[in-house]
This record gives sequence, C-alpha cells and structure tokens, in this order.
Amino acid sequence: MKLKELSDKGVKIIPLGGLEQIGMNITAFEFEDSIIVVDCGLSFPEDEMLGIDLVIPDVTYLKENIKKVKGFVITHGHEDHIGSIPYVLKDVNVPIYATKLTMGIIENKLKEHNLMKTTKRKVIKYGQSINLGCFRIEFIRTNHSIADAAALAIYTPAGIIVHTGDFKVDYTPVYGETIDLQRFGEIGKKGVLALLCDSTNVMKPGYTMSERTVGKTFDNIFAENAKSRIIVATFASNVDRVQQIINSAEKFGRKVVIEGRSMVNIMTTASELGYISMPDNILIDIEQMKNYTDDQIVLITTGSQGEAMAALSRMAASIHRKVTIKPGDCVIFSSTPIPGNEKSVSKVINELSMKGAKVVFQDTHVSGHACQEEIKLIYALTKPKYAVPVHGEYRHLIAHAELAEGMGIPKDNIFIISSGDVLELSYEKGEVIDHVPASGVLVDGLGVGDVGNIVLRDRQHLSENGLIIIVVTLEKYSNQILAGPDIVSRGFVYVRESENLMDEARDVVNEALDKCLSHNVTDWGRIKNEIRDSLSDYLWKKTKRDPMILPIIMEV
Amino acid sequence: MKLKELSDKGVKIIPLGGLEQIGMNITAFEFEDSIIVVDCGLSFPEDEMLGIDLVIPDVTYLKENIKKVKGFVITHGHEDHIGSIPYVLKDVNVPIYATKLTMGIIENKLKEHNLMKTTKRKVIKYGQSINLGCFRIEFIRTNHSIADAAALAIYTPAGIIVHTGDFKVDYTPVYGETIDLQRFGEIGKKGVLALLCDSTNVMKPGYTMSERTVGKTFDNIFAENAKSRIIVATFASNVDRVQQIINSAEKFGRKVVIEGRSMVNIMTTASELGYISMPDNILIDIEQMKNYTDDQIVLITTGSQGEAMAALSRMAASIHRKVTIKPGDCVIFSSTPIPGNEKSVSKVINELSMKGAKVVFQDTHVSGHACQEEIKLIYALTKPKYAVPVHGEYRHLIAHAELAEGMGIPKDNIFIISSGDVLELSYEKGEVIDHVPASGVLVDGLGVGDVGNIVLRDRQHLSENGLIIIVVTLEKYSNQILAGPDIVSRGFVYVRESENLMDEARDVVNEALDKCLSHNVTDWGRIKNEIRDSLSDYLWKKTKRDPMILPIIMEV
Repeated sequence: MKLKELSDKGVKIIPLGGLEQIGMNITAFEFEDSIIVVDCGLSFPEDEMLGIDLVIPDVTYLKENIKKVKGFVITHGHEDHIGSIPYVLKDVNVPIYATKLTMGIIENKLKEHNLMKTTKRKVIKYGQSINLGCFRIEFIRTNHSIADAAALAIYTPAGIIVHTGDFKVDYTPVYGETIDLQRFGEIGKKGVLALLCDSTNVMKPGYTMSERTVGKTFDNIFAENAKSRIIVATFASNVDRVQQIINSAEKFGRKVVIEGRSMVNIMTTASELGYISMPDNILIDIEQMKNYTDDQIVLITTGSQGEAMAALSRMAASIHRKVTIKPGDCVIFSSTPIPGNEKSVSKVINELSMKGAKVVFQDTHVSGHACQEEIKLIYALTKPKYAVPVHGEYRHLIAHAELAEGMGIPKDNIFIISSGDVLELSYEKGEVIDHVPASGVLVDGLGVGDVGNIVLRDRQHLSENGLIIIVVTLEKYSNQILAGPDIVSRGFVYVRESENLMDEARDVVNEALDKCLSHNVTDWGRIKNEIRDSLSDYLWKKTKRDPMILPIIMEV
Repeated sequence: MKLKELSDKGVKIIPLGGLEQIGMNITAFEFEDSIIVVDCGLSFPEDEMLGIDLVIPDVTYLKENIKKVKGFVITHGHEDHIGSIPYVLKDVNVPIYATKLTMGIIENKLKEHNLMKTTKRKVIKYGQSINLGCFRIEFIRTNHSIADAAALAIYTPAGIIVHTGDFKVDYTPVYGETIDLQRFGEIGKKGVLALLCDSTNVMKPGYTMSERTVGKTFDNIFAENAKSRIIVATFASNVDRVQQIINSAEKFGRKVVIEGRSMVNIMTTASELGYISMPDNILIDIEQMKNYTDDQIVLITTGSQGEAMAALSRMAASIHRKVTIKPGDCVIFSSTPIPGNEKSVSKVINELSMKGAKVVFQDTHVSGHACQEEIKLIYALTKPKYAVPVHGEYRHLIAHAELAEGMGIPKDNIFIISSGDVLELSYEKGEVIDHVPASGVLVDGLGVGDVGNIVLRDRQHLSENGLIIIVVTLEKYSNQILAGPDIVSRGFVYVRESENLMDEARDVVNEALDKCLSHNVTDWGRIKNEIRDSLSDYLWKKTKRDPMILPIIMEV
C-alpha cells in the first residue's frame, strides 16, 4: 500500500485481554463499520480467585457493536487463544476463520458445547487471504509449540498491521516448514503500519532452540534406559513433541500408549487431519499394556505441570486406575513449569521418586516462543512504523519496548497499552483515544460472571479463618429468647478440643443479647452487630483469629 | 577415636523434621540416657494449609524423654533452624548453645515471647566444644548466607557424626573466614561414623559463587544508575549482603535507609554484635530521606520474595506510608524467588514497572548452599562410613544419595530416611529401628495444634464453593414449622443477581421439609440430611457447584 492510498482515518486496535497478563488473548481491530477479532482465549484463575475454574474476556464492546463484527480470526489452537470461543459465541455469533488443525481443535470444543450447527467456520491455508468488511487478512506460516500456527497480515484502509500471534523461528521444525520469513520481508517492503508482536520470551537473550533438538534428547534417554518402562509427560497440545516421542519409540521398538483425556482428544484430531504420522500398530490401548514387558512400552501422558487431576499426578499419588508407578520406571518431564506451578511439579517428582521411579528433565523441552534475537528479526523484516508489544505482563511489555527502541522505532511510536485501551493508529499519528470494558469474567461451574469481588472476598475470609454461625429464635412481640443462641462453627477450630473456648463464646453472645434485649433494642441489625462485635473482640483476644461471624435471628 | 574404643551400641539419629521437606529442621541424637537436639526450625505452610501461619515440629518424643534431653545445639540463625524455639521451649525447656550472632537472633525471639529469664543459653565459639551428657559437640566454622554458621562434630560413644548444617564453601567471604576445611580434614582422619550433609543444592552441578561477587554487581549497578534513587530488596537475615550494599553506598556517596521490621531487627543485632561495619553517619532514618536528593539515597528493604505485607510489596502497591515509587527509581531484587513465590515476585515487578521504576535482578544474588562439587569436597575430607542426606525434599535426598555413592560410600551405607525415623548407627551396622511422631503442628494465630485436617478440609471446601445456611424453627411437640426456612449464603453466588436460584433453592428445602414432616420424621439428623441432599442435588444440577450446606434446626 502506498502512502497516498492510505486513509487519513485511523484504524482502532482494541485488546480485550492479553495485555498485562499472560493468557486470555483477544484483540479487536475496527475501521468504520468493520470489526474483526483476532483470537478468543481464556486465562486460568489467579491464586486469589478461589474456586474459579477459568476466566474469559468481557466482550461487552463486541456485543454493543455486534453489527460491525465480521468474524473471529484465530492464530493457533492453544487455550489462551481459543478457549473462550464457546462462551463468547453465545453473545457474538460470527464466523470463525482458522488453519486446519486449529479449526479441528476448535470444533472439538464446539461439539462439546453443542454449537457445531450454529457456528459458521472456514478453514484457511497459509498464504490465503480473506476479506472481512473493509479488512483483508492474510495467514502467514509461523512456528510454535503447536502445528499450524499463523501470523496475520491485516490490510486496513489505514495501512498494514502485522500480528505475529505466538511464534518462534524454527529452521528445522518437526512438522511443516520454517516460518515464512520471506513473506514477512515482502510485506515489510510494502510498508507496515504496526507490528503486534509476542512478548512472552522477550526477557530472554538469544534464540529459542529448535523443537527438533528435543528429539535427540529422547533418543539418548531411550538408549540409556533401555530396560525401563518409559513414561513421558508433556503438554497435550504439543503434537510435534508427541511425534518425536513416537519416533523414538519406533526406533527403539516400543509400543505407545497415550493417556489423559485432553491428550487423547488432540492426538485423535491431529491424527485424523494428518498432523502426526503414526507407524502401523505402534499405538496400543492402555488395557493392552499388560501384554508387553516394560522395555516394550512408552506411555505418553498429561500432567507435566503437576495438575492435581491429570494422569501423571494420579499415577504419582497411586490413584490412577490403570497405571502403577514402580521401581525402575523412567519418567520424563518434557516441559518446564509454568510460573506458579513449580511446587506442584516438585510434589509430583517427589512422589514419583519415592515410588522408585527415575525422573528426568534435562534438555527435554524447548519453548514455543521467540527470544530476543528472533523478535529482532521480525522487526528487521517488517520495519513497522509503530510497535505494539502484545502477549505479556507489564514487565515483558516494557522490556519489549526497549528492544523495539533498539531496533530503531522512535519511543513515541511504541505503545504499551492495557487491555481495554482503544489505540487509534494512522500514518499521521497514534494515540489511545478511549477505554472499553475489559476485565475478565469469572467462570465457576456453569456460572459465568455470577461470582464477583464480594463472593471472592467472602471465600478468602472463609478460607483463612473459617466461620461461626449464631442462631437465636426470638418471640415476635416480647423479643424474648425462645431458642438458642446456638453456635455452629466450620473451619475455625477443632471443636472437641476447644470446648472451653466455644462455651465462653456462648457466654459472650448471651451477654451481648441480654444487653440489647434489656435495653429494648428491637432493630435486628443492631442486635446482630452487637453480637458480631463482641464475639469478634473476644475471639481475637483469645486466639488472634478473625473468623467470619454470621448472626441469624429467627422470629416466631 | 580408634575403632577399639567405640561402643558396640549404636547412636540413634532421629530427625523430627527437615526430611522430605525444605524447612523445619530439627534432629535428635540419642545415646543411652543422653539426647541432644540439633536445630529447632519452623516451616511455612503449604498452599493447602489455608489460614495457617506457620508449622512447628511435633516434639512428643522429646517431651516423653525430657529427662534425657541435655540441650539444643543450633547451627545458624535462619528461621528454618531456630523459628520453633519459642514454641518448643514451653514443653522442652533445656539450654541453648549457639554462636554469637545466632544467639543474638534467638534472643530477639525469646524477648518477644518473654522467655529470656527462663531460658539457659551459652554462646559458643568456632573450635570450641561442649559436653552434653555422653556427647561432646564441636562447632566448626562454615560459610552460609548468614554469618556465624557452624557445622557440628558430634563425638558419640559410637563414633563421630559430622552435621554440616546449611553451608557453602566461600573462599572470599564478606565477613570472617573460609569454612574450616582443615578441621573437616582432621576430623575425617580420626574417622567419621556418619555425615549428615545439606542437600538443598545437590541437584545443581559445579560450585556456588562467592558472596563477594554480588558486591561487584552492586558497584556496577550503582555506577549505571548514578542519578536514580536505588532500592535494594533482599533477605532480612543476609547480613553480608547488606554489608556489601552499604559498601557500595559508601563508595558512591549515598546514605542508607533500612526499612522493614525483620530487617531492622536483625541489622540492629548484627550491628551491636559487630557483624556489620557501618561507616559513621551513613545510616539515616526513613523520615530524613526527604532531606536528600534521589542520587544520595539507598533504601534497603524486605520483600524480595513478593511477600504481601513486606515493605517493598507495600511500596509497589502504593500502600507504604513513607515511600512512594516514582519513575526513575532503580529497584534491585537481590534474591531469587523461593519455589512457590514466583508469581508474587512477578506481581511486585509488574507493579514497580508500571510506576516507572527500573527493575534489576541479573547477577544480584548467590545461593547460601553448596552445589555438587562443594558437597563432594566435604565427603572427600570427612570420608564417612555412613551418609545420611539431610535438608531436602525426597528428590534432593535421592540425588544426594547418588552423589554419595559416586564418592565411594557403599549403597547399603547410605540412608534416605524420613522425619520420625529412628536410625541406629554403630560401626557394625546401621538400620531404621523405629518411628516416632514427626508430623508438623499447625500454628494459626495463638492456636498451636488446634487446627487439624477436619478444619483444613472445611476451609478448603468453603474457599472453593462458599456455603449455604438453612435455618428453620420447629415447634417442639407438633414439629410444625414456626419460622423459616431462611437461607443465608456466603461465597457462593452474588445473591442479588441470582434471586431466582435462591428462590428455587428455598422451594427445594421446603419440599424436603414437607416430605419429612408429613412422614412424621422427628430425627433431626435425618431431616438435616434430607435438606442437605436435595439442595445439593439441585445446586449441582443448576450450577455444577458444591457449596457447603449447613442446615440448622431450632426448637421452640
């Protein structure tokens, strides 16, 4: 696009998630009456979001502009890029565009949520473009820890925007070809308005290793542990990793068992769509394992992050119904712990070790994200006017901004924005012009958004201190105590060993009640407060603890 | 000790904590009527120990054998080696032996708990020995991330046991001298029955860097950030680290402010006892900061682990009363996150970055624990008959066992034991002959041991799902409903937005009640169960959630 062809008007970039956090990637691009949405991911709850299953984006802005929204354009099939689709489709039912494997994984979700019939979708090939409203979107081949990942060149009336998605540069990928660096260069030559580039590994110098290096490690481990049963835990969606384990298995004459629901699902899809090549008869059912000796088996499983209910964790805790860890087993962690999972992973390693298993984790994993030199390469190829670092916590974004500055982007042309910011970019200028709702929506069981701060605060309070319930029945007119006060506690102290404390607590409550009733206080709110305050004081003095206190008054 | 002088009887080694975990180090050594206890530490609660403040050892075995117990011998002043002393002294009031700084830190605790008058204690110098019952204990100089750390040579009738405590080999320590390797060699020549050696870093190859290397990094950072206010967060107890920050401050003409209660306490003690050398007038009060420009200040603070209430976290969250982070500040994390703290540390870094601070953490920390080559050195010097790896999770202990085997200890002479195991060692043989109570005791507020599994399970349940309370008042004889059922919920759903759900829940409860009362069920247990079951079914069907349900029946 030549400069003179460009619109004076700016294109709006509106991340509804994915900034100042890792996960829940979703970004809207808007120009006049067209909106497209890149990705629709979820994030997993923070530690303080007690009882929450997952967090999905707030798509109020899309709902309010539903007539403009032309479709979801998806970069790859990881949960943090597709996981919210079934939830968001209920409000924003527009077509989905993605590469073949990505679409296969999305369709698994749509089937689960019974949304196949009502969802339009189209599989796009690398190099192919689609027109959505005033936008044209081209899918560009990249490398990542899942096959079929794409970067997007978004041709807008205001200029070309390149969105890398999650990517790395792998010169020797296991499946398919190297990221289409030529095309990045070609588009760069046309002139790129803005680059939205992955920040996950921007704090790491150098290059990310090729996925293929892990295959060599597997061969070595298989050779060294020729007599052991080998169990490999890895990410369910890392098809290339599983391919390499299968390759080693074939080389060393072992049968392969795949275990763990999410891994079985993805491998089935990958296999059906031709993303994994499986030698004949190498795959056996877990039930058939007993027909083979240890040195004839490789078990590939979920649970590399120490997730409590994943297959490997259940094996380690001796609650897996079909696999029992035994001395001599060789367990390979083909992963590194995601921040926050370190302790759970250690726990599983300890449990496996106690059962006599040998645990291996050296050189058995490479990242799917670009390090500094690869990110610089993309800047060198695309030479964007504006840099908008994406996919990262704030510390990643500022490190990315520094890198971009080093690559010659003027400081004023680098935008560190937050989820919800509306960044308008034209050739003339770029600025944040507005802010739209973009907090996460909490999902708990079937409830979407019905757990908010008050509920979470109560859960926090209950989790740390437990609760005490005081029930008293009063006579309607006389305000005489007819029954109670009864005291029930949960999560506070082990009552049988704290009888004195509970007896004294009852005395405190009785005193508070007497005080109120003898002064003819009839306002239940005041009576409850009096009970709560005096009991709270007493318990703090006695125990330095602060349980939730719930006075309940019944009237007869 | 020559072989012929050795008793046929074995010496018993009884770890009451510290094995299969990091923290809560405490080990009893018993021979006939003498017991000595090495260290008396605490551990911090696991994630699932909701609301628990800390965990102390179960010293039932010491209480039951109190007449034999001669004293606590303490290796160094870290919480995981001294933190339980004030709690345990209440049951096991025996003298404490430690080096000067270690004793200073212990005395701070004793003062807080008002135990100074009732606790006998004696400061021991490196090279000095004490006789306790049939044991002689010699304190040997080591290096660690706190000054005055000691290994112990325990001369027992069955042979010499060497306990390294936490240690590293630092050829250029900041304070004092290198670990007394000569003495380790000399004792090794006499013949060592068993070596109990630190396992913390046994999975790391090579050597741990000298503490002094960090000083150079500080100098570089101070030079590069000459105009910024510099804030350094580190472990409160790392006196040598603080010394090096002070050295850099002096070199660059900055005043030093120390902030954070635990750091102020330890630095006061270290300064009084001569473990830190403070140039005249370099230390200023936090209130005086305003009289200096940014380039004249270094603030040394707690919070390097992202602890929510520590000084740095409060600064980052803008709730510190005296320090406001501003653009241009340079914040140095002189620490690495302890496993489990990664996310909290990231959170603080993000918050600091958002306020415009530059955050630095490269080469600003070295470990206080020996890596593989240093551990091998101790084996080479002491050449023990038996190896008993200590201070580590199971995965560390087995890695240590492998290392010991590599150093020539026969497999049968290496003992991976658990807390509570009674290991009896003589020159002839070693075996685990018994097991004593050794689970941790949970401390919550003032309560020691009054929170157990039931309470924790309830807290877990409440934290994930919240609770629903049903209260109903029945007439004593007729069993007629006089009031209610009232439904109160906390931590379940945001009630105002879920009125339908709560109305239907009430209908379900009413139905359950009607069913019971119309069938003349008078057993309250059965009525409560009926209410609980039917409401639980209904809520699971509607929400896929499982709140705690507490039916309460009042009788009038």
